[in-house]
Amino acid sequence: MFLTKTEYDRGVNTFSPDGRLFQVEYAIEATKLGSTGIGIKTPEGVVLAVEKRINSPLIVTDSVEKIFKIADHLENFTFIACAVSGLVADARTLIDRARVETSHHWFVYNEEMNVEDVTQAVSNLALAFGDDDAEPGAMSRPFGVALLFAGHDENGPQLYHMDPSGTYIRYEAKAIGSGSEGAQQALQEVFKKDMTLNEACKHALTILRQVMEEKLDANNVEVGFFSNYS
Amino acid sequence: MFLTKTEYDRGVNTFSPDGRLFQVEYAIEATKLGSTGIGIKTPEGVVLAVEKRINSPLIVTDSVEKIFKIADHLENFTFIACAVSGLVADARTLIDRARVETSHHWFVYNEEMNVEDVTQAVSNLALAFGDDDAEPGAMSRPFGVALLFAGHDENGPQLYHMDPSGTYIRYEAKAIGSGSEGAQQALQEVFKKDMTLNEACKHALTILRQVMEEKLDANNVEVGFFSNYS
Amino acid sequence: MFLTKTEYDRGVNTFSPDGRLFQVEYAIEATKLGSTGIGIKTPEGVVLAVEKRINSPLIVTDSVEKIFKIADHLENFTFIACAVSGLVADARTLIDRARVETSHHWFVYNEEMNVEDVTQAVSNLALAFGDDDAEPGAMSRPFGVALLFAGHDENGPQLYHMDPSGTYIRYEAKAIGSGSEGAQQALQEVFKKDMTLNEACKHALTILRQVMEEKLDANNVEVGFFSNYS
Amino acid sequence: MFLTKTEYDRGVNTFSPDGRLFQVEYAIEATKLGSTGIGIKTPEGVVLAVEKRINSPLIVTDSVEKIFKIADHLENFTFIACAVSGLVADARTLIDRARVETSHHWFVYNEEMNVEDVTQAVSNLALAFGDDDAEPGAMSRPFGVALLFAGHDENGPQLYHMDPSGTYIRYEAKAIGSGSEGAQQALQEVFKKDMTLNEACKHALTILRQVMEEKLDANNVEVGFFSNYS
Amino acid sequence: MFLTKTEYDRGVNTFSPDGRLFQVEYAIEATKLGSTGIGIKTPEGVVLAVEKRINSPLIVTDSVEKIFKIADHLENFTFIACAVSGLVADARTLIDRARVETSHHWFVYNEEMNVEDVTQAVSNLALAFGDDDAEPGAMSRPFGVALLFAGHDENGPQLYHMDPSGTYIRYEAKAIGSGSEGAQQALQEVFKKDMTLNEACKHALTILRQVMEEKLDANNVEVGFFSNYS
Amino acid sequence: MFLTKTEYDRGVNTFSPDGRLFQVEYAIEATKLGSTGIGIKTPEGVVLAVEKRINSPLIVTDSVEKIFKIADHLENFTFIACAVSGLVADARTLIDRARVETSHHWFVYNEEMNVEDVTQAVSNLALAFGDDDAEPGAMSRPFGVALLFAGHDENGPQLYHMDPSGTYIRYEAKAIGSGSEGAQQALQEVFKKDMTLNEACKHALTILRQVMEEKLDANNVEVGFFSNYS
Amino acid sequence: MFLTKTEYDRGVNTFSPDGRLFQVEYAIEATKLGSTGIGIKTPEGVVLAVEKRINSPLIVTDSVEKIFKIADHLENFTFIACAVSGLVADARTLIDRARVETSHHWFVYNEEMNVEDVTQAVSNLALAFGDDDAEPGAMSRPFGVALLFAGHDENGPQLYHMDPSGTYIRYEAKAIGSGSEGAQQALQEVFKKDMTLNEACKHALTILRQVMEEKLDANNVEVGFFSNYS
Repeated sequence: MFLTKTEYDRGVNTFSPDGRLFQVEYAIEATKLGSTGIGIKTPEGVVLAVEKRINSPLIVTDSVEKIFKIADHLENFTFIACAVSGLVADARTLIDRARVETSHHWFVYNEEMNVEDVTQAVSNLALAFGDDDAEPGAMSRPFGVALLFAGHDENGPQLYHMDPSGTYIRYEAKAIGSGSEGAQQALQEVFKKDMTLNEACKHALTILRQVMEEKLDANNVEVGFFSNYS
Repeated sequence: MFLTKTEYDRGVNTFSPDGRLFQVEYAIEATKLGSTGIGIKTPEGVVLAVEKRINSPLIVTDSVEKIFKIADHLENFTFIACAVSGLVADARTLIDRARVETSHHWFVYNEEMNVEDVTQAVSNLALAFGDDDAEPGAMSRPFGVALLFAGHDENGPQLYHMDPSGTYIRYEAKAIGSGSEGAQQALQEVFKKDMTLNEACKHALTILRQVMEEKLDANNVEVGFFSNYS
Repeated sequence: MFLTKTEYDRGVNTFSPDGRLFQVEYAIEATKLGSTGIGIKTPEGVVLAVEKRINSPLIVTDSVEKIFKIADHLENFTFIACAVSGLVADARTLIDRARVETSHHWFVYNEEMNVEDVTQAVSNLALAFGDDDAEPGAMSRPFGVALLFAGHDENGPQLYHMDPSGTYIRYEAKAIGSGSEGAQQALQEVFKKDMTLNEACKHALTILRQVMEEKLDANNVEVGFFSNYS
Repeated sequence: MFLTKTEYDRGVNTFSPDGRLFQVEYAIEATKLGSTGIGIKTPEGVVLAVEKRINSPLIVTDSVEKIFKIADHLENFTFIACAVSGLVADARTLIDRARVETSHHWFVYNEEMNVEDVTQAVSNLALAFGDDDAEPGAMSRPFGVALLFAGHDENGPQLYHMDPSGTYIRYEAKAIGSGSEGAQQALQEVFKKDMTLNEACKHALTILRQVMEEKLDANNVEVGFFSNYS
Repeated sequence: MFLTKTEYDRGVNTFSPDGRLFQVEYAIEATKLGSTGIGIKTPEGVVLAVEKRINSPLIVTDSVEKIFKIADHLENFTFIACAVSGLVADARTLIDRARVETSHHWFVYNEEMNVEDVTQAVSNLALAFGDDDAEPGAMSRPFGVALLFAGHDENGPQLYHMDPSGTYIRYEAKAIGSGSEGAQQALQEVFKKDMTLNEACKHALTILRQVMEEKLDANNVEVGFFSNYS
Repeated sequence: MFLTKTEYDRGVNTFSPDGRLFQVEYAIEATKLGSTGIGIKTPEGVVLAVEKRINSPLIVTDSVEKIFKIADHLENFTFIACAVSGLVADARTLIDRARVETSHHWFVYNEEMNVEDVTQAVSNLALAFGDDDAEPGAMSRPFGVALLFAGHDENGPQLYHMDPSGTYIRYEAKAIGSGSEGAQQALQEVFKKDMTLNEACKHALTILRQVMEEKLDANNVEVGFFSNYS
Repeated sequence: MFLTKTEYDRGVNTFSPDGRLFQVEYAIEATKLGSTGIGIKTPEGVVLAVEKRINSPLIVTDSVEKIFKIADHLENFTFIACAVSGLVADARTLIDRARVETSHHWFVYNEEMNVEDVTQAVSNLALAFGDDDAEPGAMSRPFGVALLFAGHDENGPQLYHMDPSGTYIRYEAKAIGSGSEGAQQALQEVFKKDMTLNEACKHALTILRQVMEEKLDANNVEVGFFSNYS
């Protein structure tokens, strides 16, 4: 696969002769070095489950955060969160942008952003790599992180996946990170549109257990539920 | 073809000894990695049909967008839309520019931009690569996207094709994306100036079916009609 | 010819050991990839004839423009136009500059720019490559386009040729583009100072027919007359 | 390990084909050239012990500083300090940021920053490498220093570890610097959650003695206690 | 001569190990690709004669300009002009600077610049290459042009030569361009301090005829006289 | 030692795979090309002795300065000076910073800076290499100079050593420059905490005589005493 | 000598592994390509004698200037001048700085700068290479010129030598340029502290005659006397 690349893959914004942008493809590889995360949408809500990598028994496991709350407006039944896999620093930059956008939206329009608009706002930042002036916060390389935006808004439960190219797509169920390939395969087998949130959670943990190298226990997984009943 | 290039192809704005700008040619290659799209102009209006690539059964297919509405001023029977093939992020930047230009034109002159003027405004942005200061939004590399601008304005139905070099040409019928070569050949065989919009649509779908790798169904194609009767 | 160049030819503003600027020479090569154009000056006026490359029968041939009107002040019998060969995007930037300069001149001095002054204004922009700050609109590489400025002003009919180095010279008759070498040779044989505009036009089309690869017809050539009787 | 890297490891913000940022990994290597430091959290408080490298008997050992006081607000029982290993200059830049943030927080909100917030503020600076405009003080390369933030705030004793990637994690006990691997192993064996501060100090010094090349004495170690009784 | 240069010759402002700036030397080579020019000072005035290269019989020879008027203040018997050899674009930039400086001087001090001061002002611009901020108009490379400043001022007839390094020296008689070596040799043999302007002109044309490749005629040479009787 | 470096050592701010910044290490080598200097602290005060390299008998030896006065406030018994070894130009930049800082401190706070604070202020400038914006006066490379700050302040006699990495350490006695290795060894053998200033001076000159290539005489050494009795 | 340099010598501000800045050393080589100059200080004043290279009999020798007047305040018996060897353009930049500084000093303080202060002001500019922002007028490379500052101020006759590294040293007698090595040797043999200015001048010319390739005559040497009797 790498035989004809020669030197095209180091220029962030240089096309290879066959029209590819290698740095974006390498950033996607970076997300596959991260811990595995799974999101499943059900009619009741969305469940996120993400592996925590605890490589020392002396780590205080609560301080390892894999699911970030973006917005929480209970009066409107809107709740948005984000699971991440890949470079921790990049994730935090994108999460911060999501939080600023939702707060700003609330402040200016007095209504909540819905999940898709939050995802698009973060995507705009992710797209701006290599052109620092285009967006404040844009980097000279693509962000090395995959995100699962989960939430509940006026359109019901929502699950969005965004990769380092800034492409975002709505999914019924999606896996990210090092075990994503096997997990996505498993999700296709078990997913049913009318699952309960409880069943979805059980499936998510079962699949995580299969793809994780460490034995799954209460310390090395973070689970979040996003439903309009919560 | 690549034997004499050596290192000319990595400088965005460097001529090769035979006067070529390789990065523009590679960007055109990038558009040929995208999904196939077809536009056909008839006296009644224009039809656009674009393949959607759904590589997982868990994708919510409505969230994959290939035809973007630019402007819609029904009182003046003006309607403009754009089908894209290539890098999703680049497409969105160009679509945004088209929308801003049409809104701005409407606001300032109280009349609609016609399809050609929208195409030229987007072309100006596409031309400005490598000279970031020339245009806000310009990139350090050519945009890796091909566009089909379709619409209906005071001159009747219009179909424009723009490639990464910023060149735009009016077509009777045009294909873009990975299957464009075969599709364009097929279009030349079936095209008649006095087709109805219905016939054009059938031809577009027939041709798409021939060049797509996946079996065409309701989920993996997006179709749009732009006529003065709509 | 290319044996001793090694790496001098990629620096836009780097001299080779024998004092040459290769990027300018390569830009001149770029103009030779363009469609052939011919300009002939007669006492009655100037004729321009330029090949259009129509590589698909579905192209709307009117949308392919090779001769651009710069200024048209009939009350003063001034008329300026420009035929181009080479990179379409670069041509448009230079044409825009020419139009802005003539409008500005008219607005400020209440008189028309003559053909030479327009040519010099465009040349100033073409010269400024590699020093972006020197001129707004200047590029980091030479413009890859050859231009024929034709017009009629207070000094009578005028024909100017400008190449990517910014050098402009007045000609009696001049060919540009891929067939320019053969066409220029043919022009020297047929040119007479006292030709009528009609004869000049016939000669231009005859020569174009000889050097074009496609068979010349009404669709693939653009002709313009610039005389004080028009 | 280094066979496939070729030239990816010199671009600060360039991904390698397998999605790694080598300059960050090399900066982590830089921290392993520094002197060994150990932090242990107990219910009573936190103890920090750091090796001093005194390579000449004519050095005034008090002038070699390895533990830096960040904030000291006794009325609120808040006390924050930081042990460092790696490049001295980088450490001082990060310590200065920590001090400015705590003073600023106190001045603006009239309350102390807690240990986690100080750590996050420093992490934000550490993340900003390669994008100088993002943060005043950001560098063109990752900071080559590991830090142990120790302190006592409203949540009791706290110990945080931060590495050059900007990742920070809460630990019960953590070692940094050249002997960190062996020391961390030893810490796992002796650590008990209910140790007294005295026992923790003895363990820290015992472990330092094992991993240091020089013989440990009063001149070549710096010890700090951070408890709410001090 | 080029064996030990390796890569020092491409950095505009990099010394080679033996203390040379190669780009300046290559720019001097560029002037030797230009058309030959000759200047001779006599007690009566200065004569300039420059070859015109007319490589097509269809060129309007008057439009090829090799001697540029800088200033012309007859009331003070001051007259300055400039013959150039080398890159046309660079020559025009330097001529423009000379014209601006003389106009500015006249406007501010109500007196003419003398020939030496004009030459020095142009030299300042030529020296500023590689440090764009130093002078507006400065380039990133040396100017590839040799100039002969001729004129008559309060000190009588004056002839100055300037090369791409910005060095300017007063000459009795000087040749530039491709035939300069042979021409300078011939000038040394025929020059007499008390020549009449007529004799100088004859000598200049005779020498030009010897060194030019084309046969000298009225179309391919430009001659200028600068005396206090004109 | 240099086998695995390949190209890491030319990037000022690029880590090598084992976490080293080679340009800083090379700058330290630069200080070892400088003349030898020795500083000794005694209870009475500090003595500095620095070799002067007089490579021509026609040099006016007084104009070769190796010890620079920083501040001199006799009323407060504060006196600070600095001995340097390495690049003369870099030394002067750092000395200027030290003088500005002390003057500024005196002007703003109406008290003297003590020796450590001056040293730290200079260190801040030395640390800022490669990030020009961080500090006015910062350079794109490390400073190639070693400094001995000597003085007497409220804490008594003080001797500080600073190297190109910006690290500064208090010493009882320290040697810098080309003979520093041998001189430091000799200092360790002869140093006693209760030496008189006279004894220290004799030791310094004896050691200098051993390590200097030239024969030591009154012309090629500069000696300074900094005591509270002067 | 050049075997181990590889690529360190092209980075203006990059240290080689042994701590050298090659571009400065190459700039010193550049001064050795210049014409030879000699300065001798006597109790009566200073004499400067510099070779002029007249490589054509048609050069007006007065226009070749090698000794530049910096300041001339006869009422205070202050007179400063400067002899140069190396790149003409660089010399002029430094001379301009010296003139501006002395004028500025006179205007602001109503007293003359003495010779050392002028030399230091020019040195500050010479030191600033590679950091363009540090000083207006600073270049991206070291200045390729050696200077002899000669003058008479309140301290009597003064002779300073400055090289491209910005180092300046006071000399009794000093030679610069291509013949400097032999000339300096000769100066050491003939110099006596109590020479008259006449004897010094004779020695200077005798030595110049020995080291110059051309035969010394009135046209190819420039001599200047700087004494308090002039």
